[in-house]
Amino acid sequence: MTNEELSYIAGFLDGDGCIMLQLVYRHDYVFGYQIRASIVFYQDVRNKYFLEWLKKKLKFGYIRNRNDGMSEYTIVGVETVSQVLRLIKPYLKLKKRQISLALRVLKQMPGSGNKLTPKKLLRLSRLVDGFSDLNYSKKRTNTSAKVEEFLKSHHLL
Amino acid sequence: MTNEELSYIAGFLDGDGCIMLQLVYRHDYVFGYQIRASIVFYQDVRNKYFLEWLKKKLKFGYIRNRNDGMSEYTIVGVETVSQVLRLIKPYLKLKKRQISLALRVLKQMPGSGNKLTPKKLLRLSRLVDGFSDLNYSKKRTNTSAKVEEFLKSHHLL
Repeated sequence: MTNEELSYIAGFLDGDGCIMLQLVYRHDYVFGYQIRASIVFYQDVRNKYFLEWLKKKLKFGYIRNRNDGMSEYTIVGVETVSQVLRLIKPYLKLKKRQISLALRVLKQMPGSGNKLTPKKLLRLSRLVDGFSDLNYSKKRTNTSAKVEEFLKSHHLL
Repeated sequence: MTNEELSYIAGFLDGDGCIMLQLVYRHDYVFGYQIRASIVFYQDVRNKYFLEWLKKKLKFGYIRNRNDGMSEYTIVGVETVSQVLRLIKPYLKLKKRQISLALRVLKQMPGSGNKLTPKKLLRLSRLVDGFSDLNYSKKRTNTSAKVEEFLKSHHLL
């Protein structure tokens, strides 16, 4: 990708993109919660070609049509989201701090040779809280307090 | 401005900027209506520094704080809006067609040696209708039909 393309995508992401870190409850997870990372772009279905262009450039993720006349391009997963964010970060102006925090959390996520412990999950969950504050999201139901409650009630902490 | 800055601003404008052509009723205008051109960017007041950066780059317009916790950066006027749009247009991906139409309308607007006639206003008003269709704006009350009605009722057409 050219620097101009990266700048363009950074501008678009600053204006209309959404980076999310979410605590997702999983009934089959020992520690109860998963940290889900995603990047989402929406467009009126008439502008789907634009999302397809974005996907061609960013390589990862999938596009789907929602029921409300919108198309949605989503990139999920620690590795892919990290890669995309690292690529765009130098060009951001509005969400740079938010993305730095996201990358800090993602770097500590369980992966190869990086085992999750209850304590670590709780610490990461608190970072997710801080991230969501930057996102100005108000309707969060799963917070680090919930994770802590789960871990305690299961005698994991 | 660098090409990277222009790309960034184009991306941001595609994502979150708003270009408007509006028919504004003016009780003191002989032909009843004025065509108003503007570019608007909004941000949470906490991100006002970003609008200030934009203004520094684009040079024109003014920033104000609204009552709802948002800051608004507006560029108004045929000449200034035309200049800004011409600058950014080559870098747009989503709003290129819309901006081409806006520039076509703006070029025909009354100015130095470019006198407005009722017929011309009506023709331009119809282009404004087409522009608003591209903008997906639904709540328009002043349309070219209204302009036509005014001009006819005042025996100007």
